[in-house]
Amino acid sequence: MRTALVIGTGLIGTSIALALSSRGVRVHLEDSDDDSLRTAAALGAGTEEPVAAPVDLAVVAVPPASIAESVAAAQRRGVARGYVDVGSVKGGPGRELAARGGDLGSYLGTHPMAGRERSGPLAATPDLFEGRPWVIATTPAVDTELLNLTLELVALCRAVPVVMDADSHDRAVALVSHAPQLLSSLVAARLETAEESAVRLCGQGIRDVTRIAASDPAMWIDILAANPGPVADVLSEVAADLEETVRSLRALQAADEAKRADGAAGIEELLRRGAAGRQRVPGKHGAAPTAYETVAVPISDRPGELARIFADAGRAGVNIEDVRIEHATAQQSGLVQLMVEPSAAPALAAALREQGWSIRR
Amino acid sequence: MRTALVIGTGLIGTSIALALSSRGVRVHLEDSDDDSLRTAAALGAGTEEPVAAPVDLAVVAVPPASIAESVAAAQRRGVARGYVDVGSVKGGPGRELAARGGDLGSYLGTHPMAGRERSGPLAATPDLFEGRPWVIATTPAVDTELLNLTLELVALCRAVPVVMDADSHDRAVALVSHAPQLLSSLVAARLETAEESAVRLCGQGIRDVTRIAASDPAMWIDILAANPGPVADVLSEVAADLEETVRSLRALQAADEAKRADGAAGIEELLRRGAAGRQRVPGKHGAAPTAYETVAVPISDRPGELARIFADAGRAGVNIEDVRIEHATAQQSGLVQLMVEPSAAPALAAALREQGWSIRR
Repeated sequence: MRTALVIGTGLIGTSIALALSSRGVRVHLEDSDDDSLRTAAALGAGTEEPVAAPVDLAVVAVPPASIAESVAAAQRRGVARGYVDVGSVKGGPGRELAARGGDLGSYLGTHPMAGRERSGPLAATPDLFEGRPWVIATTPAVDTELLNLTLELVALCRAVPVVMDADSHDRAVALVSHAPQLLSSLVAARLETAEESAVRLCGQGIRDVTRIAASDPAMWIDILAANPGPVADVLSEVAADLEETVRSLRALQAADEAKRADGAAGIEELLRRGAAGRQRVPGKHGAAPTAYETVAVPISDRPGELARIFADAGRAGVNIEDVRIEHATAQQSGLVQLMVEPSAAPALAAALREQGWSIRR
Repeated sequence: MRTALVIGTGLIGTSIALALSSRGVRVHLEDSDDDSLRTAAALGAGTEEPVAAPVDLAVVAVPPASIAESVAAAQRRGVARGYVDVGSVKGGPGRELAARGGDLGSYLGTHPMAGRERSGPLAATPDLFEGRPWVIATTPAVDTELLNLTLELVALCRAVPVVMDADSHDRAVALVSHAPQLLSSLVAARLETAEESAVRLCGQGIRDVTRIAASDPAMWIDILAANPGPVADVLSEVAADLEETVRSLRALQAADEAKRADGAAGIEELLRRGAAGRQRVPGKHGAAPTAYETVAVPISDRPGELARIFADAGRAGVNIEDVRIEHATAQQSGLVQLMVEPSAAPALAAALREQGWSIRR
C-alpha cells in the first residue's frame, strides 16, 4: 500500500492515518469538519490535498449511521481501488450499502477493537491498535486484492486480524461490549438516588463494575442504535437469568427448608456459571488469564513512594505483570498489589522485605 | 479496653485480634477448628488460654448463619462485659438473638467493610481495616458503655465508624455490594457458552465488570442467604430497568421513526442515570471521585521498565494518584496510565519526555 485516503479524522481515523503515515504511506485526509481536518493534518496524520488519482485504499472512519452513505459517495467519486470502514457495528452498514446500490465487491467492513475514553483527533496516537484484535468481516463478494490490502492496513497498524462474518461480529460485540456497557449503567443507575450513608459503603467491587458507566453517552447511543437487535437478545437472556435469581433469593426467605435449599442451589449455580464465564475472559497478551500471585505492600502517600517500590522490585529482576493500587478511604495511605508469575512471588517478597517494605501476602 | 475475646479465627477475626494485640490489648482466641486457632495464635493474634474472668469485649467473627447462636452461647457463659459481631449482614442475627432469648442490651451488631480475595487466618493482617468504614448498627437497647467499647475497637483497628440501624445497613450492602456481585456473575455467566471468537474480542470494559465474578461462591452463598430480601428488592428494581432497556432497544429496531426516537430517548436516560450514579461512587480516601488527568506511556514488557518509569516520575516530584496498566492482547508491550492531579500532568509529561519516554495524551 502506497497511498490511502482516510475519511473522518476523529480518534480512530486520525490514529490510523498517523500509523500509515509513520510507515511511509502517503495519506490524504477528508472530514466534513474543517477544524478536525486541520488538526489531524497539523499532527502529521496526512495531507489535506484532495485525491488526484485513485488511492490504494479508502478508510471510512465515520459514525455508524453515516458509514453506508459515506462509502457509497466515495465509490461514486472513484477515489480508491478498495474501500473499508472501521465502525463498531458491521451488519447494518453492509446491508444499507447494498440497498443504496453501492459496490459490495470493492467494500469490506472491519472493526479495530481499540478506543479511548477521549475522542477527537487530539486523542489520536499511531500505536492505538498495537496488539489489538481487528475484525475483518469478509463476504463471498470481496475480491482477494481488497482482502490483502486490508490485511496490510491491519499489519501497518500492528493489530491482529480476526476474520468473522458481519452478523457474528455484531452478536459478539453485543455480548462482550455493548450489553456489559448497559449492565454497568443499570448497576450505577441505582446509586443516583441512593442515600449518602449507603454510597459511603461502596468498595472496590462496585467501583470496578460501574467504571464504564462513566463513558460518553452520545457515542454509546450511536453504537447501540446501530446494533439494537443483538444487544436486546443478550439482555433478554440476562433478564431471564435475573428473574430466576430474584426467584432464588425469594425462596431463600421462605420458612420451608426445602424451598430455601432450592434457592441456595439456584444462587450457587449462577455463581458457578459466572466464575466459569469469567475464567474465559482473556488476560494479558490475549492468552487465557494466568493466575498471578499478588504481593501486596502497604505504602504511604508521599511522592516517590511508588517509584521506590518499583525500583526495588525492578532490582529483584522480577517482571511485574499487573498493578493495582487500593486506597484506604479515609487515610493518606494505600496498598500496592504487585501481580507476578507465581514462581517469582517469593523472590519478590524477599527482595522487598530486605529493602524494608512490609509485605502482606 | 484491656482484654478481649475473639471467637472465630478466620480472616476477619484474626485480623482484628492482630490489630488489638499489636496495640497492647490482651486477646483470647476461640475457634471450633483447632488448626485455625493454633495458626492464629502462632501468628501472634492472641492466646489460646481460656478466659478466666470476663473480658471487656467479645468479638464474634463467625459466618452469618452462626452469629446469633454464638453470641447467645457466649452470653450464657458470661465471658465478657459486652458482645459485638462483625458479620456482613445485621438485621437477621439481631432478631435471631432476640428469639433465642439473648441479651440485646449487651450486644451490638457491627460490620467492618473490609475483606480480601483470600480467606483464613493466614490471609489476616492487622491493617486490614485501616481507613475503611466500620458500620455500627446501634439500637435503643444498647448501653453507652458498650457503644464506647465498640468505638474503641474500631479506633484500635484504625477504621472509620459509621452508625446506621441494622435494616438500613442490610439495604445499603445489598445495593452497593451484594446486588453488584450477582450482576457481575450474570454478565460473566453469558460467556460460559460463548463462541471462542467472541470471547477473543473481550476488552477492558467487560474485564472490569466481571472481575468479582471470580469470587469464592461458598462465601457469597452464606452472605446472600443471610440477606435475601434486600438483595431481591434491588435486583427487582434492576430487572424493571432492564425490561425497559430491552423495550427501548427493540424500539430502535422499528421502521417507524417516532418509535426509534422513543427508543433512543430511553437508552439516553439510562446512560445519563448510570453516569450520575457512577459519579457518586467514592474515590480515593472516600472523597468524591476527583477528575484525575491521565498521562499515558507505552512501555515494553522488559523487567525494570515499570521501575524506570516510576523512578523518572518520582524524580519529577509528582504524586501518582492511581495507575492502570493496559496490556496489548498479542504483543509483549503495554500502556501505563499514570493518574495525577490535573495541575501536575504537564510537569509529569515534560519530565518523562525528557527521560526519553513517549507520552500519549
